[in-house]
Amino acid sequence: MESIGFVGLGLMGQPIAANLIKAGCRVTVFNRSVEKARPLRELGAQVAQLPQDVVSAENAIVLTMVGDDRALEEVTIGPAGFGHRLGKDGIHVCMATVSPDIARRLQSWHAQRGSYYIAAPVFGRPPAAAAAKLWILCAGGAAAKPRVRPLLQAIGQGIFDFGEDPGAANVVKVAGNFLISAVMEGLAEALTLGEKSGIDKQAMAECYVKALFPCPVYQNYAPMIVAGGAKDVGFALRLGLKDNDLVLAAAEKVAAPMPFASVLHDRFVSAVARGRGDADWTAIAANVAEDAGLVASSLATKREG
Amino acid sequence: MESIGFVGLGLMGQPIAANLIKAGCRVTVFNRSVEKARPLRELGAQVAQLPQDVVSAENAIVLTMVGDDRALEEVTIGPAGFGHRLGKDGIHVCMATVSPDIARRLQSWHAQRGSYYIAAPVFGRPPAAAAAKLWILCAGGAAAKPRVRPLLQAIGQGIFDFGEDPGAANVVKVAGNFLISAVMEGLAEALTLGEKSGIDKQAMAECYVKALFPCPVYQNYAPMIVAGGAKDVGFALRLGLKDNDLVLAAAEKVAAPMPFASVLHDRFVSAVARGRGDADWTAIAANVAEDAGLVASSLATKREG
Amino acid sequence: MESIGFVGLGLMGQPIAANLIKAGCRVTVFNRSVEKARPLRELGAQVAQLPQDVVSAENAIVLTMVGDDRALEEVTIGPAGFGHRLGKDGIHVCMATVSPDIARRLQSWHAQRGSYYIAAPVFGRPPAAAAAKLWILCAGGAAAKPRVRPLLQAIGQGIFDFGEDPGAANVVKVAGNFLISAVMEGLAEALTLGEKSGIDKQAMAECYVKALFPCPVYQNYAPMIVAGGAKDVGFALRLGLKDNDLVLAAAEKVAAPMPFASVLHDRFVSAVARGRGDADWTAIAANVAEDAGLVASSLATKREG
Amino acid sequence: MESIGFVGLGLMGQPIAANLIKAGCRVTVFNRSVEKARPLRELGAQVAQLPQDVVSAENAIVLTMVGDDRALEEVTIGPAGFGHRLGKDGIHVCMATVSPDIARRLQSWHAQRGSYYIAAPVFGRPPAAAAAKLWILCAGGAAAKPRVRPLLQAIGQGIFDFGEDPGAANVVKVAGNFLISAVMEGLAEALTLGEKSGIDKQAMAECYVKALFPCPVYQNYAPMIVAGGAKDVGFALRLGLKDNDLVLAAAEKVAAPMPFASVLHDRFVSAVARGRGDADWTAIAANVAEDAGLVASSLATKREG
Repeated sequence: MESIGFVGLGLMGQPIAANLIKAGCRVTVFNRSVEKARPLRELGAQVAQLPQDVVSAENAIVLTMVGDDRALEEVTIGPAGFGHRLGKDGIHVCMATVSPDIARRLQSWHAQRGSYYIAAPVFGRPPAAAAAKLWILCAGGAAAKPRVRPLLQAIGQGIFDFGEDPGAANVVKVAGNFLISAVMEGLAEALTLGEKSGIDKQAMAECYVKALFPCPVYQNYAPMIVAGGAKDVGFALRLGLKDNDLVLAAAEKVAAPMPFASVLHDRFVSAVARGRGDADWTAIAANVAEDAGLVASSLATKREG
Repeated sequence: MESIGFVGLGLMGQPIAANLIKAGCRVTVFNRSVEKARPLRELGAQVAQLPQDVVSAENAIVLTMVGDDRALEEVTIGPAGFGHRLGKDGIHVCMATVSPDIARRLQSWHAQRGSYYIAAPVFGRPPAAAAAKLWILCAGGAAAKPRVRPLLQAIGQGIFDFGEDPGAANVVKVAGNFLISAVMEGLAEALTLGEKSGIDKQAMAECYVKALFPCPVYQNYAPMIVAGGAKDVGFALRLGLKDNDLVLAAAEKVAAPMPFASVLHDRFVSAVARGRGDADWTAIAANVAEDAGLVASSLATKREG
Repeated sequence: MESIGFVGLGLMGQPIAANLIKAGCRVTVFNRSVEKARPLRELGAQVAQLPQDVVSAENAIVLTMVGDDRALEEVTIGPAGFGHRLGKDGIHVCMATVSPDIARRLQSWHAQRGSYYIAAPVFGRPPAAAAAKLWILCAGGAAAKPRVRPLLQAIGQGIFDFGEDPGAANVVKVAGNFLISAVMEGLAEALTLGEKSGIDKQAMAECYVKALFPCPVYQNYAPMIVAGGAKDVGFALRLGLKDNDLVLAAAEKVAAPMPFASVLHDRFVSAVARGRGDADWTAIAANVAEDAGLVASSLATKREG
Repeated sequence: MESIGFVGLGLMGQPIAANLIKAGCRVTVFNRSVEKARPLRELGAQVAQLPQDVVSAENAIVLTMVGDDRALEEVTIGPAGFGHRLGKDGIHVCMATVSPDIARRLQSWHAQRGSYYIAAPVFGRPPAAAAAKLWILCAGGAAAKPRVRPLLQAIGQGIFDFGEDPGAANVVKVAGNFLISAVMEGLAEALTLGEKSGIDKQAMAECYVKALFPCPVYQNYAPMIVAGGAKDVGFALRLGLKDNDLVLAAAEKVAAPMPFASVLHDRFVSAVARGRGDADWTAIAANVAEDAGLVASSLATKREG
């Protein structure tokens, strides 16, 4: 298989990189805090000192899974960014949830250098990444896709192709996160109504999951909403707000009003204000309960803003 | 099996009554417009001239599936209502989507006469009713449930019991309809963003259904939302507004704010204003598109209000 | 001047009735709790034992200022209602904030008996009523208005005529209350943003009142919003919710979406849920502050719903 | 009086600069398109070729009135920016509606060079600027204010001081614009309800302005809302959306949810989508009417997004 670079070893990047190694790739990794690279070194990865050092050959492929637009820009086109070394026919595969805007800007940047940009954001949480069961949204230059496809197949259970505009994949991704957060808000409102009406919240949630929505997102989220938010932080509420900002910005750009997304904006902002920014994003259920005068199981206490 | 009365032979009532006959019940039916009773007569039903005539024995069970609170009141406690004849230990099983309030009032009314009220609203559209695959939410007097249970089993695939307050089943039902309408709105907002971003709406919808929400509500509704609303009227938008009114009233009564339900209120009202009151309720997708400056496939044209 | 009946001696009814006496009318009053009639008796009013007893002559005029639709119905067309005695060319002037619907129904009821219904809801709080400085919205049968006009002039500083449909005056009234509550919400949001940005809320409010909105509603309300709600209950929040229900119902009836009114609905419901139903309606400012993580000056403590 | 520089001669900058000349200042102006400088030259202004050339002396004062954050940055700290020449004790007075963020960043930038930044955004439209009747919000370094004060007095009718954080003045300004847009939305919703209820919109608006809100903002805006938007573009809707973005960003930064501002966001976005981005911002009234099924007087036709 390919020699590839991999930048960003967070909760998602780690298992994805591991699966690529298992699939036979020679992988050179970079992460800001180097200790996260250790488990991968044990699996056989090379560890680079700078982003630019993940490029070990001409014509390379580099996958990135970093936190936000700014970090992506730095590791790619910053002073030590790998982009400068990618060279003709090199490929940058960006798997993170970033803005459609930066996807389009980086595509242009690469095009000027003869390299390619492929957006490949994913649906799935860390366990799905570990099981190579991610769903992958893919968009970007057609010429680069054949080389990228086997890599994506090694880490996911399905690929959806959204054409040549890399921003398209990011729009689909942030709108998908919006749909998940809308499920959370809807369930929280319905169950709070139930609780205040004297109905067993859990029985109510089970009824909805069984009769209306027997699928993973509801099966996973409904119990967390019943509990007023998950104890373990799978996805920080503050990042949920960031993704909500991305979908609202993308929608403003093309002049598409999204009233549900606006309600969710207010919801996330209020949750941060009440000290839940670092809690799991399902903690918005606690805010919904408080707005109805219920004392939410206190998941977080510090106030901020 | 039991001798039962059945009032209300609309799109849902017809197949439910037919399944009860097939299950071996002797059924006496009443419907305001008598021609709808014909198919059931051919299956062996008696046809009553007045609501009160569906009670053929002491200790009877009467199921009702009528349009709204007012119709329910009339057939039950109106001058020719069956309630007056139900007598001691008679049971009224109300399957329609009505307000929690009227459920509680009718329970009291029956209790004063020694009869019982069981709320048994359902999830499922006409095809599910025909296939005896409804999901049934059940609440009311415990003493009456054992006799009612076999009837519900004959028409559904599962029963959820929400205790003795019949209003509880109605709250779960209207909140469930709220969740379905929230799915419609969420999908419509996401797909409109996609369309204005140059993305193939249908591919986007398929991605969400496959990767995030592989369950019947999304599988059924996503294509209708893509189309800007279903051609066939499975559930009239005007009734969607009525159900939204029910959930908001139930929520106001227990002081539970529901901002998504409020957005949906505005959405349904605007759809009625633009002439879509008699269209399928999925036609709210056309309003979402119009708000983004797209010319919605015109499902309805007359304006009103 | 006229012999008139007056039903409803609350915070507004008292000073209005007093001004009519001072203007030379012979007034017969009725109030459910009779002690509220005492001050008026001292001014020369007759005190009736039943609503119907306020009609002392043929061809009478009766003004009503009662709490809601139900109370209005009872005193007018209930068993002891004055409506039955009003007779041909009698006039019912209804000054309360009731629904457009009941206005239209009572107009029909009176029309069948040869009597008239005039809707005359007012803007202004108790001090304005005492000073005969109310603004009066007037609608109803043209034939009755000349006799009513001098009475309205005796209690207000201006009359706006909205034609023959009495519901029109009520629509203008409930929409006006909506505008006032929108001012409250807007100020609360702006000042909360200011407070969290480290800005002196009071200086900020004074700036807006002076530079943008130098008029009574803002001059009166801004300091109450700064304080997180008025200490004295000029208008109970629970009644604010009732009026909001009226405007939303009137808007749904004519298919006019009102997203600001829907936000206010959620706001009032949440404020009731947090125990502020009996506080002044300006207490919604405390909810706005709490949603931003601020500890609102606790105006009320009991929770409900 | 002072020798001052003035950058930005748009609808507001022109009359402000003119008033400073009339007050006796020696003024050097800069504008991107030089023809706008001509009227001021006739009044005695010097015309500079580059932003940096407006600084004619040590210790200078430069006022800026430019369109947005980006333009402000360019004229101040760009390659030809005047900031580089301002020198010790020089003062930059920024009158435009920009973000609190850039105000704080520029304050730091100036502080490092011994110069001062004063935020001085204004309330008032071009006629008020011409009449020297602006209301001025002022914040920034205390040491610089005494020299700035006479200049501000020469162009306005009142100054509100919000302390040393220049961002504070910008927060007050964008929140003030939010309050004005909330007035527009509230009036549009109320008058649309009225229109669909068969009420004369204009009479209804006059009633509100006279009885509830006798102050300039309502007196000016109500007739424009009645008309479905102003014919003349006093303030482009697209800029209204930009200001709404500023207030939402400022609020998110301090974790203050603003549901009215979110509704306005959706409103402005939808108005842009329906081709009203270049219309006056009062054209949101046309969108409110359309959402209620009314055919809005077509103020703009091209669609975009």
